[in-house]
Amino acid sequence: MQFNTIGIIVKPEAVVVTDTLAHLLAYLKNKKLRVLLDESAQGLCQQNQTIVNRAQLAKQSDLVITIGGDGTILNAARSIADEDVPLVGINIGRLGFLADVPPNDFETALDKILAGDYLKAERFMLSASVQRDGKTLFSSDALNDVVMHVRNVARMIDFETRVDGKHVNHQRADGFIVATPTGSTAYALSSGGPILHAGLQAIALVPICPHTLSSRPLVVKADAVIEIIVGDTGQAIAQVTCDGQTSFDVIHGDVIKVQRKTKLLTLLHPPGHSYFEILRAKLHWNKNS
Amino acid sequence: MQFNTIGIIVKPEAVVVTDTLAHLLAYLKNKKLRVLLDESAQGLCQQNQTIVNRAQLAKQSDLVITIGGDGTILNAARSIADEDVPLVGINIGRLGFLADVPPNDFETALDKILAGDYLKAERFMLSASVQRDGKTLFSSDALNDVVMHVRNVARMIDFETRVDGKHVNHQRADGFIVATPTGSTAYALSSGGPILHAGLQAIALVPICPHTLSSRPLVVKADAVIEIIVGDTGQAIAQVTCDGQTSFDVIHGDVIKVQRKTKLLTLLHPPGHSYFEILRAKLHWNKNS
Amino acid sequence: MQFNTIGIIVKPEAVVVTDTLAHLLAYLKNKKLRVLLDESAQGLCQQNQTIVNRAQLAKQSDLVITIGGDGTILNAARSIADEDVPLVGINIGRLGFLADVPPNDFETALDKILAGDYLKAERFMLSASVQRDGKTLFSSDALNDVVMHVRNVARMIDFETRVDGKHVNHQRADGFIVATPTGSTAYALSSGGPILHAGLQAIALVPICPHTLSSRPLVVKADAVIEIIVGDTGQAIAQVTCDGQTSFDVIHGDVIKVQRKTKLLTLLHPPGHSYFEILRAKLHWNKNS
Amino acid sequence: MQFNTIGIIVKPEAVVVTDTLAHLLAYLKNKKLRVLLDESAQGLCQQNQTIVNRAQLAKQSDLVITIGGDGTILNAARSIADEDVPLVGINIGRLGFLADVPPNDFETALDKILAGDYLKAERFMLSASVQRDGKTLFSSDALNDVVMHVRNVARMIDFETRVDGKHVNHQRADGFIVATPTGSTAYALSSGGPILHAGLQAIALVPICPHTLSSRPLVVKADAVIEIIVGDTGQAIAQVTCDGQTSFDVIHGDVIKVQRKTKLLTLLHPPGHSYFEILRAKLHWNKNS
Repeated sequence: MQFNTIGIIVKPEAVVVTDTLAHLLAYLKNKKLRVLLDESAQGLCQQNQTIVNRAQLAKQSDLVITIGGDGTILNAARSIADEDVPLVGINIGRLGFLADVPPNDFETALDKILAGDYLKAERFMLSASVQRDGKTLFSSDALNDVVMHVRNVARMIDFETRVDGKHVNHQRADGFIVATPTGSTAYALSSGGPILHAGLQAIALVPICPHTLSSRPLVVKADAVIEIIVGDTGQAIAQVTCDGQTSFDVIHGDVIKVQRKTKLLTLLHPPGHSYFEILRAKLHWNKNS
Repeated sequence: MQFNTIGIIVKPEAVVVTDTLAHLLAYLKNKKLRVLLDESAQGLCQQNQTIVNRAQLAKQSDLVITIGGDGTILNAARSIADEDVPLVGINIGRLGFLADVPPNDFETALDKILAGDYLKAERFMLSASVQRDGKTLFSSDALNDVVMHVRNVARMIDFETRVDGKHVNHQRADGFIVATPTGSTAYALSSGGPILHAGLQAIALVPICPHTLSSRPLVVKADAVIEIIVGDTGQAIAQVTCDGQTSFDVIHGDVIKVQRKTKLLTLLHPPGHSYFEILRAKLHWNKNS
Repeated sequence: MQFNTIGIIVKPEAVVVTDTLAHLLAYLKNKKLRVLLDESAQGLCQQNQTIVNRAQLAKQSDLVITIGGDGTILNAARSIADEDVPLVGINIGRLGFLADVPPNDFETALDKILAGDYLKAERFMLSASVQRDGKTLFSSDALNDVVMHVRNVARMIDFETRVDGKHVNHQRADGFIVATPTGSTAYALSSGGPILHAGLQAIALVPICPHTLSSRPLVVKADAVIEIIVGDTGQAIAQVTCDGQTSFDVIHGDVIKVQRKTKLLTLLHPPGHSYFEILRAKLHWNKNS
Repeated sequence: MQFNTIGIIVKPEAVVVTDTLAHLLAYLKNKKLRVLLDESAQGLCQQNQTIVNRAQLAKQSDLVITIGGDGTILNAARSIADEDVPLVGINIGRLGFLADVPPNDFETALDKILAGDYLKAERFMLSASVQRDGKTLFSSDALNDVVMHVRNVARMIDFETRVDGKHVNHQRADGFIVATPTGSTAYALSSGGPILHAGLQAIALVPICPHTLSSRPLVVKADAVIEIIVGDTGQAIAQVTCDGQTSFDVIHGDVIKVQRKTKLLTLLHPPGHSYFEILRAKLHWNKNS
């Protein structure tokens, strides 16, 4: 794969990315590569750059580099996955599960990646939709998770879960998470879900603060069709949210349908990248703990 | 204790209480007791009843009877605790932890209670306040819990906890629960908190979906002063809520202070009431499970 | 598939199976099927039956019927899996996850199964071995789980986990469970592991009472090679156990290697069998809880 | 309090304590204090020391210093608590919850403590006994916990719990922990129990790997009388163990009775000792996690 056109997406309104962005632009200019800047970078760079909208960026780029954290990758992933553009993340701030190129020495990593020396990790995503009275009112992709959640404090929501059309159970909880392996180390982990190895073809269904004490996380096949039927919400206002970034209010009777997206997301990592090493670092696992 | 004036508080706008309310009014009239109806009962009874505001009801009643669920008792408790009025709960709907008099045979229970044959359970409550720039902007009592929580989905909140002025830790979580023994079987239990026996002089501090994987519930003395210092909330909107019923938005730097309320709440139960029996029934504990 | 020879394995020394065994023998005799009885049935039946050892039974049977509980199926599975003999379980006692034919009406179920009207569920098993100084000292199959565990109370064990030759982490815990989807609803569930849907190609790695508070269950691909390297056990005596039935003591430096067994186990269920229905019944999930 | 006679108890057969023991003996000799050495120190010191048995040591000492870890303090506590002798722990190896004097600079801490400048922490202990057919067959004290546990892998035990003579529930689990606040950060924490603040007058009841999914830790008053009635153990061999150090096999029908010991244990800490600081260090809580 030849990377001629590089798209850049940054953490929006984040002054912290300014320096890294300037260095990256200089680096890519020096490599004589064509660069497309996402609108998120507007105002964060002085140079005379080509700024395009996200759809254009996705269509024309051979590679997208994000500057930010895992959230920036999540945001980028949802908009470029349909175009089969691979993604590299320069990580500002805390170490990320997804963004693993260090900002102070991105040149070493990018030299290798641009030369074709990289580890390719394919991650599957989810497609979520909300159906009401037979109509699809909302749809969105998600790389990490699709979360149904009450928006007001200390309220529970009643819901039914179905897998491949089969009734699983009724639960009362603060919410419910449908997570990919990628998302299993994010919100789902805080809610008591298991870690799904990044390459596993599986989806985790994790209740949030279940009132039903015998509720447990359930892991199903990646090609399962998951439906959450919203029950009586009482005074609660419930919402479905993809990757913590795009939301839609749901009401009694709505069906939230989640299934694997056909197109995969491709992440490129510098050689030497180790899934378990990042896991150990992020979860503070070490021999002496 | 002589119960001459009986206050009645019902689940607001709840048509389901109508029948029980009518029967209760007839029963009390027959006993020739003075009855004060809370404004929550307005429109739910045909009879020519004395309807007073909550403050009046609290001051003048010798006993308050609620019709509804545990939520109705929580609501009543916060308004009558200062006046030392005991509380009895007629339970509509699911079995309650607090409201334990059955609606279809409340006469048996009330005959005994009005005759002085009852079990008296004193429960302590919490006083919560929010301080910003040295001023108290919000204060409320709580029988179950004081909860700090983000209102928007999939956002975490940074906060520091102090006990008796001493730094305990910094955490990142969806929220944090300060629960009495009474509240330990409510929201705190769904969030992984322990059950505190109703008579224990202790408060449970329970993180909600902690990002910090080594976070654990902490139980402190009932007379501890608990402070939660709200950290950088990022894009999250955080709120403090007492008993799931009264809320206040908090911002970075706010101090949520929680301590035991001096006045105790007195619940009256019919003879034979058993704490562990209710626990077993509510949590579905039985020999064959 | 034609079922001409039926093998029968029962719960050993279990008088409770006597009646069902007698009825089953009469039923099969009436069907004019050849019957082989496992040595476990010796002394539990009066009739003049052909009793064979397990290896013979596995080789010659077209179908094996167990009478007992899930433990009897686990025991049978380990000895017949290599011969591709399908298994049906008549359940005595508590409802089983695996043994689902009721003893008081097994005729209805067996009529259908023998006529070829059944649901076929293929479950993968694990092969475990213990290697010390390059030699394999122990090996066993398991349908539910391979468990490393300290045998004496309140002692921890240090160990390292590797997946596909890669270091995952060091942990200190009471033990460690490697569970199939079949075993995910058994011991692994009590230890905080997730439920893996029966058809999922995945293995759950679940620490038992981890001293390391950030330890979490990890789910890996079914074809992963899992190695547990036993660390300093101090005063603890550690053991590896397959399906809770066959054990071997391990010492510092031993490598417990676990991987998927090539041969699958085939369970036959009567038509109408529902995985989620059994899950709901076993875990006491219902709408009102 | 004047500390004239100092008892010393060390980690048994632990060569690692030799150096610290030599330094401590020299230090105390220099202070012209009378020193009694426990039999655990036999063979670990060259000097001509007075070695006494534990009962003598407990009776004659004004202060006991342990060299080892928390286990050494647990061991010492059970033997000296009846004599009201305070305890100081020099910590070898990992930081301890109880033993907090560093071995490489114990002089600074002991100078202050011997001069009366210390923090005094009173910790309550438990008294456990096993009753069979009306006879007490075993009794022991415990500073951390009384644990009932199956000794063989993957076996469960049935048992009933009573608090103050009242039936709480029946459970099936790997075991059950009765923990003091001191013990709440030890084994009980690994089993999902809450942290009880060191000064709390409460006892935590924590099931180990409960088969009953709705089982939860229960916290009761420190003066509660807890009874565990051992049920049908099937093929499991069950044991009761105090502080992980002294054990007794129990059988179906045995009653394990646990209650607070009247005598308190007194720990002396150097000035500046902070409970929460040790908690943060031991549990790896910090701002960036």
